[in-house]
Amino acid sequence: MPDNQRHQPIELAKSYRLLNHGPVTIVTSSHNGERNIMAAAWAMPLDFDPPKVAVVIDRNTWTRELIEASGRFALNIPTRAIASQVLAVGASSGREGDKFAALGLETFTGSSDLPLVAGCAGWLECRILPEDSIQQRYDLFLAEVTAAWADPQLYSDGRWHFPTPDSRTLHYIAGGAFFVTGDELAL
Amino acid sequence: MPDNQRHQPIELAKSYRLLNHGPVTIVTSSHNGERNIMAAAWAMPLDFDPPKVAVVIDRNTWTRELIEASGRFALNIPTRAIASQVLAVGASSGREGDKFAALGLETFTGSSDLPLVAGCAGWLECRILPEDSIQQRYDLFLAEVTAAWADPQLYSDGRWHFPTPDSRTLHYIAGGAFFVTGDELAL
Repeated sequence: MPDNQRHQPIELAKSYRLLNHGPVTIVTSSHNGERNIMAAAWAMPLDFDPPKVAVVIDRNTWTRELIEASGRFALNIPTRAIASQVLAVGASSGREGDKFAALGLETFTGSSDLPLVAGCAGWLECRILPEDSIQQRYDLFLAEVTAAWADPQLYSDGRWHFPTPDSRTLHYIAGGAFFVTGDELAL
Repeated sequence: MPDNQRHQPIELAKSYRLLNHGPVTIVTSSHNGERNIMAAAWAMPLDFDPPKVAVVIDRNTWTRELIEASGRFALNIPTRAIASQVLAVGASSGREGDKFAALGLETFTGSSDLPLVAGCAGWLECRILPEDSIQQRYDLFLAEVTAAWADPQLYSDGRWHFPTPDSRTLHYIAGGAFFVTGDELAL
């Protein structure tokens, strides 16, 4: 499938559904021609419409500097296919060189200059809300979702599909281990 | 197994691991002899040590009133065995009568008077942090974890076990559907 068919826009008011089941995320950021990538398990929806998210970004990271400078970040929702890269992005600092290239991660852009990671299931482009006090005290960023995308083979019409084992999303445990998103429970 | 052996204390600095993989939670609260229960998918760890959590609690709920009055809540992490009750707690208001009894949910207490729901995998007792501004603007509560418990058959020594299909935790999708926590991915 051509790359531009691997990400289709998602209705903003339903974009929380990409994050609702608690998957691990990759945070991407860029500013003045520099960019970085980190993993974040502590991300969740905060509101439906307009959609908002909350994410914890440690103050000692290069990503944090880029986000505070640009006011923007993207949440990428990785699949099992790139699980080893999700772990690897936490093992080095972007200050030491471009981690995308080092990890062989390709990117594309959506509605801004934020790098979106190919091979993910969904993507949320976000603009941070001016809540300096909780940013400083808790490393907690609140942001509005300004654009959302999903791979239509994995998510469409508001529903996840996961057609192959490698297409499932991930949930971070600790110590380099994930759970794979399991089966849907029909009640 | 006697009921008092179904919840063992968890080291506070590792209590984030109960919530790290993004499971759906049940929020319980109590104040002046009244108590309530609601489901919350939007909950996540906020810090390791002292452990903190963030959770979204809608302003129109009875639970919200009890939490604001008492300054406390518990996050219960349900298993597949009680998935239908997790859905049902969202279908009525505690103002109309005790939902625990109506749903046949048994409770016990840990280190406070907060009701903890039997049949869950883990429990976090929390005291809210005084962040009135974001509570009012975003319905977002930040809280410190004051005690943590887990069912040792499901979680021990910092690791999840899930010995049976019914013992797995849940991830809320939307529209009454869950994903079950899947297999661990060894990398």
